[in-house]
Amino acid sequence: MAHIKLPEGIPGIIGPMTAFPDTERHLSGLAETLLRGPSSLSAAERELIAAYVSSGNECEFCTRSHAAASRSLYGEACDVVDRTLADPQAAPISEKMKSLLAIAGKVRRDGRLVNDDDIAQARANGADDKAIHDTVLIAAAFCMYNRYVDGLATWTPKDPELYQAMGERLATHGYIRPRETLR
Amino acid sequence: MAHIKLPEGIPGIIGPMTAFPDTERHLSGLAETLLRGPSSLSAAERELIAAYVSSGNECEFCTRSHAAASRSLYGEACDVVDRTLADPQAAPISEKMKSLLAIAGKVRRDGRLVNDDDIAQARANGADDKAIHDTVLIAAAFCMYNRYVDGLATWTPKDPELYQAMGERLATHGYIRPRETLR
Repeated sequence: MAHIKLPEGIPGIIGPMTAFPDTERHLSGLAETLLRGPSSLSAAERELIAAYVSSGNECEFCTRSHAAASRSLYGEACDVVDRTLADPQAAPISEKMKSLLAIAGKVRRDGRLVNDDDIAQARANGADDKAIHDTVLIAAAFCMYNRYVDGLATWTPKDPELYQAMGERLATHGYIRPRETLR
Repeated sequence: MAHIKLPEGIPGIIGPMTAFPDTERHLSGLAETLLRGPSSLSAAERELIAAYVSSGNECEFCTRSHAAASRSLYGEACDVVDRTLADPQAAPISEKMKSLLAIAGKVRRDGRLVNDDDIAQARANGADDKAIHDTVLIAAAFCMYNRYVDGLATWTPKDPELYQAMGERLATHGYIRPRETLR
């Protein structure tokens, strides 16, 4: 049971976002801008960074829903997602993504761990300032979303089909949901 | 030097917020809603939670600026801020605030650490659902802001007067800044 009264049968972050629409607006707006707005990283890559950070934080709801969104966006190449979550350095992703995931993993633990060598490596692999910025902010933002979900003990469904449907919805429609589903 | 190109001479989070206004809008909106919007906690108490979490994450820029904002909002009782940051359980704050700071400290480390006893204690001390929600989300959000500031290696000024002025500005005007200062 969640630590505070939340609408019943609504999974994960959607529960407190439905109950507290004043903050939901900004939480959803940030996710939409950061994961779908203009960037030198694809939406599939950004969702993969989100899933990777959530996996490191062991937030099951966020890991499963953003992994599903990334799979849906990668399409035929979707097995890259599970291979990256299992072992990013051995996964069939670009060297740029490997160096950005290394930065994301450090930001997840403590932003001060990111050093000049990490940044030089990412640049040598083709990352520009916007990719580095977006990686740092996605990793930081999922440290927030993960803690919001778990700190309130929200409901984590177990049904894989639910996450698949959620992933497809996020891949197709993004994070700004019609008002009537929220209030 | 920061890890990416940021406007010169702009401290802490204000650098990347100025350089990346699309995400700034949501980051500022969330801070304004969460720290100044309707709540059963005062703005001074919420700024104190923000400073406490930032202190735990050892983010100097966020700790000093939000401690200064909290001091400004507490007014004559401003010494409560430094006493809380030094030792919350011995500080002259309410039992409600002590139990909420204990929750915030757990969320900062890992949301899953918050247990039913922590919540029962906070309720017994007078915290309602909104206070618990806001505490969890403030702690989660500052895990983001702290990592954004430190993961990009933004500039941390040392001058105490700069933080005092920033605290007074945040206490008086909040987080939504005029557009012309941002672009």
